[in-house]
Amino acid sequence: MKLTALGSGVGGAGLADGLQRVVGENLAVIVNTGDNFDLHGLRLAPDLDTVMYTLADIANSETGSGIAGDTFNNLDMISRYGGEDWFRIGDRELATHLLRTQLLKGGSTLTRTTLSLAQSLGVRARILPMANEPVATIVNTNAGELAFQEYFVHRRWQPILKSYRFYGIDKARVTPEITAALQTAQAIIFCPSNPFVGVEPILSVKGMRDLIKQARVPRIAVSPIIGGESLDGVTAKMFKELGMEPSAFQVARLLRGAIDRFVLDRLDEAQAPLIKDLGMRVWVTDTLVRTQADRERLAREIVEWVS
Amino acid sequence: MKLTALGSGVGGAGLADGLQRVVGENLAVIVNTGDNFDLHGLRLAPDLDTVMYTLADIANSETGSGIAGDTFNNLDMISRYGGEDWFRIGDRELATHLLRTQLLKGGSTLTRTTLSLAQSLGVRARILPMANEPVATIVNTNAGELAFQEYFVHRRWQPILKSYRFYGIDKARVTPEITAALQTAQAIIFCPSNPFVGVEPILSVKGMRDLIKQARVPRIAVSPIIGGESLDGVTAKMFKELGMEPSAFQVARLLRGAIDRFVLDRLDEAQAPLIKDLGMRVWVTDTLVRTQADRERLAREIVEWVS
Repeated sequence: MKLTALGSGVGGAGLADGLQRVVGENLAVIVNTGDNFDLHGLRLAPDLDTVMYTLADIANSETGSGIAGDTFNNLDMISRYGGEDWFRIGDRELATHLLRTQLLKGGSTLTRTTLSLAQSLGVRARILPMANEPVATIVNTNAGELAFQEYFVHRRWQPILKSYRFYGIDKARVTPEITAALQTAQAIIFCPSNPFVGVEPILSVKGMRDLIKQARVPRIAVSPIIGGESLDGVTAKMFKELGMEPSAFQVARLLRGAIDRFVLDRLDEAQAPLIKDLGMRVWVTDTLVRTQADRERLAREIVEWVS
Repeated sequence: MKLTALGSGVGGAGLADGLQRVVGENLAVIVNTGDNFDLHGLRLAPDLDTVMYTLADIANSETGSGIAGDTFNNLDMISRYGGEDWFRIGDRELATHLLRTQLLKGGSTLTRTTLSLAQSLGVRARILPMANEPVATIVNTNAGELAFQEYFVHRRWQPILKSYRFYGIDKARVTPEITAALQTAQAIIFCPSNPFVGVEPILSVKGMRDLIKQARVPRIAVSPIIGGESLDGVTAKMFKELGMEPSAFQVARLLRGAIDRFVLDRLDEAQAPLIKDLGMRVWVTDTLVRTQADRERLAREIVEWVS
C-alpha cells in the first residue's frame, strides 16, 4: 500500500517511523520547512532533520532533536569564540548542515538534497520538503515579532502567541515529487503535529490543498492533542493563546476540508460524536505512542482501517 | 622589545610561541596563507590556525595540527554521508572555520578576522595573515598539478615536486597591519619554516621584501634544516627534489637579501664560514626545539643576541 504522510516535529516523525516500519519504501512524508533558518552561514532544517534522523533510526529520542549519542565540542568552541550558541548543534548533526548547505549552493533543490542525505542514512521512505522555496514562520508575540527558532528554541516558547505568518509562502509551490506522491497515494495521513506552525505551512503551499482534496482516497488525521494536552507542551499552549480549547475536536475542525477520517484517543472518545458531525469517520484507539512498538502498532491499525 | 616574526607550519608556530613567551604582546607574527583553501563551503587556513592554536596553548602537539583533545564525530558523520573526509577537521576546530567563513562573508578582512579569533582565544601576539587577498599554492609534481592541501595532506607529500607557484599572488598586497609591524619592529625573525611553500609566499606579497629590506634592524633566520634533515620531513625532501642539498647553508642562500643574521644548529657548525661568506652574522646554538622550555630558551637567546 502506497501512503503519503504529512507532518512536522517529534509527533510527526514518530508516526512516520511507524508507517515506514509497515510499508517501507512505499511511504512518502511531506515535511514542514517553515522552521528552516540560517546559522553560522549554514542552512538548518530542524523539522526535516527530526524526521530524517527518526526514519534513519539515529534520532536522539530523549531530547526529541538531533542525533543519538552526539557530542557538543564544536558548540563549546563556538561559545569560547563568543559565537551564537543558543541553538545547540551537535558535532554529528553539523555534518548534515554542512552538506545540505553545500548541495544547495551547488544548485541542488532542497528536495533532491534531502532525498540524497536521507538515502545515505539508509532511510527507505521518501522525505519530501513541503517546497523548494524558502519559507520562514514568523510569530507575533507579547515579546514582539520573532523568527520561529528564536521563539521556539531561544525563548523556549514562553512568549505569548498572538498570531503567526509564513514569510515567503506566496512563492512556494508544490514540487513534482509531492504531486506524484499525493496522486499515487492510497491514503493520506496527517501525522500528529502542531496544526498552526507544523501542518498549516504545508497546507498553505500553493497547490497542496487542491492536490489533497482531489485525491479520492482516505485522508486521515491523528490528533496531537490527547486529553487536552500535547506531548510537546507547546501545541496545547498555542491553542489557548489563540483563543481555542486544546482538544481533538478543535484539531479536526482546523483540518476540515483536508481530511475525511480522524483517529481519536480513547481518552477523548466523548468527542467522537462532535467530530462525526464534521462529516468525518472516527477511529478510537491508543494514540499516545512513545516506543517504536507503539508507533508500529498505531501505524498498522491505520493501514488496516484504510485497506 | 618589539619583534616581528614570519613563518608557517609547526616549526614557525613553535618559535613564535617561544617569542611570545619572551615579549608577549610585543610580538607580531606574519603567517603564510598560501595553503588556505575551501572545504564544505568553509574557508580553511591551516598555517594560520597552527600558529593561532600554538600561541593560544591549545594546539595538538602530537599531530602538529588541530586542537588538543579534539574529537572527530563530525568527520565520522561526513564520511557516513559519503562526503569528502580526507582532510580531517576536528569538531572543535570546525568552530574556527565556521566563524572565520562567516566573518569573511560579512565583509571582515582576513586580518581582522584572524585578530578577532585569536583574541577570543587569549593570544597575546598579533597574528597577521601575509595578505587579505586569497593566494593558493599550486605544486607541479610527477602526479600533475595539485592544490597544496591535496598534495600535502591527501597525498601525504609523496608526489615528487617539480615546481610550485602562488596563484593570485600578483593581487596580494601587504596590509597596513603588516606595514606597521615591520616598520616598528626592533628585529625581524624568520622562524624555521619551509623556505619554498612557507616563507617564499610571504616574501612574494607585493611590498613585503621592500619593507623588510628597508628595516634598519637585525633580520635573522633560524634554519628549518638541521643536519640535513627537517623536523617535518617534507622540507628536506623538497630541497632534494628541487635539485638542492638540504642544508642550513642553502636556507641562508635562499633568504639572501632578506636577512643579515643566521641561527645555526651546533650540528651544522661547519657551515658557519660558508654562511658568513654570504655576508651574514652567525649564532650557533641548539635549534631543535621540541618542548615549550626549549622554544622559550631559543627565543630568549635570539632576543639577547639582537638587544
